Amino acid sequence: MDHFEELKKICVGRTTNAPAELCCYAADGSQIKGKPDYVLFPHTTEEVSQILAYANIHLIPVTARGAGTGMAGGAVPVQGGILLDLSQMNRILSIDIDNIQVTVEAGLIADKLNEALKPYGFFFPPDPGSAATCTIGGQIANNASGMRCVKYGTTKNYVLNLEVVLADGTVIETGRNCLKSSAGYDLSRLYVGSEGTLGIITKAVLKIAPIPQARKLVMVSFPSPESAGLSVSRVFAAGVIPSACEILDKTSVSVLTKLDPNIIFPRDGDVVLFEVDGSKNAVDESAEMLAKACEEMSSSILITDDPAKMKEIWDARRMVGAAVSKLDPTKTRVYAGEDLGVPIRKLPEAISKVYEITNEVGITPMIYGHVGDGTVHVGLFIDVLDENDWKKLHIAADKLHLAAIELGGTVSSEHGIGAARGMYLEKQCGPAFEVMKAIKKALDPNGILNPGKLGL
Amino acid sequence: MDHFEELKKICVGRTTNAPAELCCYAADGSQIKGKPDYVLFPHTTEEVSQILAYANIHLIPVTARGAGTGMAGGAVPVQGGILLDLSQMNRILSIDIDNIQVTVEAGLIADKLNEALKPYGFFFPPDPGSAATCTIGGQIANNASGMRCVKYGTTKNYVLNLEVVLADGTVIETGRNCLKSSAGYDLSRLYVGSEGTLGIITKAVLKIAPIPQARKLVMVSFPSPESAGLSVSRVFAAGVIPSACEILDKTSVSVLTKLDPNIIFPRDGDVVLFEVDGSKNAVDESAEMLAKACEEMSSSILITDDPAKMKEIWDARRMVGAAVSKLDPTKTRVYAGEDLGVPIRKLPEAISKVYEITNEVGITPMIYGHVGDGTVHVGLFIDVLDENDWKKLHIAADKLHLAAIELGGTVSSEHGIGAARGMYLEKQCGPAFEVMKAIKKALDPNGILNPGKLGL
Repeated sequence: MDHFEELKKICVGRTTNAPAELCCYAADGSQIKGKPDYVLFPHTTEEVSQILAYANIHLIPVTARGAGTGMAGGAVPVQGGILLDLSQMNRILSIDIDNIQVTVEAGLIADKLNEALKPYGFFFPPDPGSAATCTIGGQIANNASGMRCVKYGTTKNYVLNLEVVLADGTVIETGRNCLKSSAGYDLSRLYVGSEGTLGIITKAVLKIAPIPQARKLVMVSFPSPESAGLSVSRVFAAGVIPSACEILDKTSVSVLTKLDPNIIFPRDGDVVLFEVDGSKNAVDESAEMLAKACEEMSSSILITDDPAKMKEIWDARRMVGAAVSKLDPTKTRVYAGEDLGVPIRKLPEAISKVYEITNEVGITPMIYGHVGDGTVHVGLFIDVLDENDWKKLHIAADKLHLAAIELGGTVSSEHGIGAARGMYLEKQCGPAFEVMKAIKKALDPNGILNPGKLGL
Repeated sequence: MDHFEELKKICVGRTTNAPAELCCYAADGSQIKGKPDYVLFPHTTEEVSQILAYANIHLIPVTARGAGTGMAGGAVPVQGGILLDLSQMNRILSIDIDNIQVTVEAGLIADKLNEALKPYGFFFPPDPGSAATCTIGGQIANNASGMRCVKYGTTKNYVLNLEVVLADGTVIETGRNCLKSSAGYDLSRLYVGSEGTLGIITKAVLKIAPIPQARKLVMVSFPSPESAGLSVSRVFAAGVIPSACEILDKTSVSVLTKLDPNIIFPRDGDVVLFEVDGSKNAVDESAEMLAKACEEMSSSILITDDPAKMKEIWDARRMVGAAVSKLDPTKTRVYAGEDLGVPIRKLPEAISKVYEITNEVGITPMIYGHVGDGTVHVGLFIDVLDENDWKKLHIAADKLHLAAIELGGTVSSEHGIGAARGMYLEKQCGPAFEVMKAIKKALDPNGILNPGKLGL
């Protein structure tokens, strides 16, 4: 039987197996590679259901893909088979302010949702760095979250209900369109972060939040990355929950100041950018309390609510990952060991450990990340034409992952496990890994859903 | 083999099968009954593990119990077997402010945790009405939440990591002690709300939050319960997220005013109690915005931050469920159909529906609940010696549950399914119920964990 001919009947005129096009689907933001046999562009849940029912009978691997911005190979079809490109299922189906919720298709670009919500004075808080291009479905499948989760929580806190197509084509709803329910197992949260291995998310009902009236930025410079790390728990203990809390180490800051010598960053240390939001007066109070909590440990403090200055600073922060490659044109940033998470109190130790490991291996690191929730993003730069550099990179990434586990943390804070980190999951989870395997086996007995991921 | 003799060797001196004691374990806050064969009082995870390993081999049902305050029979051993009383595993193992987390044993009373946290200026936000007596383990197993979740989220938002004993005695950790992780399936949230059917929760690592500086109460009276229901979405749309949002219908208010004629409740309508919290100025601003959003629809508005007045009002609100029975000593409140949840916009319709159903059946209802998240608690009062009243009660509860499903809501917002609502879960979940069954089968293949619950 010619599978592609059969599948063409489901997605009429929306399929491809042209070699050049297949190559476009063989990678994501990571180093993982794997070419699909065919790419399908479904427009409806019914089509996804038919595709899965067919694949399940004929044991064809199915990998879902949104925008392909993942950092761990989650959307890369490492065992070939069907690539389900969901980017054409991208409608906003309802904006329901009275119920504080929206219903969207999985292929919607994350930022498009916030654009549509803005006129209503609402927003969808979880904001991965890739929000301008990533899809909501991919964001949910990876529990990708970003800068705001210190205060607002991660993507999983905003999922009320999902429409999911199971391995055999059955369509389920994982919850109810209401804000609270205690009725059976929380399937919504089981599917958040499951990376397409238990079913394909086709629609999502998401909670939204009112846009805060005001924001204020507090930029604090510290004499060491360790004291920068320590500041976070001091701020919490002072009773302030910042809406963002980002660290930029000396290397990151020097990159930014070289790119733009007029940039208003301090030149003298490791920087933490705190943002507070809320009503006008609340923001003033919180900024003051926050500055006070950092005062003793810091070298300098800048407080601003000037929109232009805030934009300049946040734009610089967003650029930092890409910007470094401009420093040395022979070096490229490669995503590996880039998404560590640790308990907040272990931040200073984790930061020291990153420097120790990269120093030992001989790679220059830069550190940035959402330290308010213990996320340590590590940037590693190599000459991609130098085989020895690749070796160093892999050694460093391996050591970084193991260090995160050792510190009681996680090998992925928000990018997911995919194929890039599957080998660490059992080590991190211990016997709980067997529970994950049992769930996978129960819900995907034929193993067609995104095989080769999560180390399962 | 005499199972009790074998089990005594695990919990030496901490077991009973005395008939009088077994009777004490045959019920909870619901109408569900079921006597265990033996009660064990483990002190360690290791003991729980040994008990489960034994029970799994010998196919003995195991039901975990905290304080027995459940409203749906979750802790009632409807198929006999082992009752695991976890109330002696009640230690606070660590309070770690720098990491914004605590580690506790499952049998700890919820309020004890908040007492211990108070000196640090922190608290554990989810507060079920039974917090003075219920255990943290029971709270987690039911995702019980209470008044504050409009702003703070439910119990599931605060669980970082759980120690769980599986059916075969294996001990797992469901997550990591860090604030964010995207590494494999979210087992923590799978166990929250699983009501002891997938494993026994023995320890919990919980996120905590700083105690807000200030609180303010806005008591608004409305001409109808429907307009009271509608006020909630108006307040949200105005950009205010109250920390509590409780409705008391005319019947509830009249109960309170009869009990205490001097109480400061308005006499003229259905009341919503809004509370806002945060920094001093933020609270003033929010209270003002909130009052403005309700102004047009309301009959009267009272704003207060007088601690004595606030205490009086909240104490009255907490008493309402129990207080009604004082009105008519021949009637007792029975918990059935008491925990509906609906999308916020459906609140007015749900409230009308409750009156319509109870009117038709011939029972006087009272309505209160956390309307900020769509929870409608219904109080039904019967003469418990009158068989006909029991019949009416069951008919009304059945209709109420079906109405909640019909309105796109849930048969349980925060009390759980247990044995009392198992028959509705499949209707509510549709084909997703099969997914729950598959997970149950995968993780408890011998069906020893709390059998007869969730309709599984």
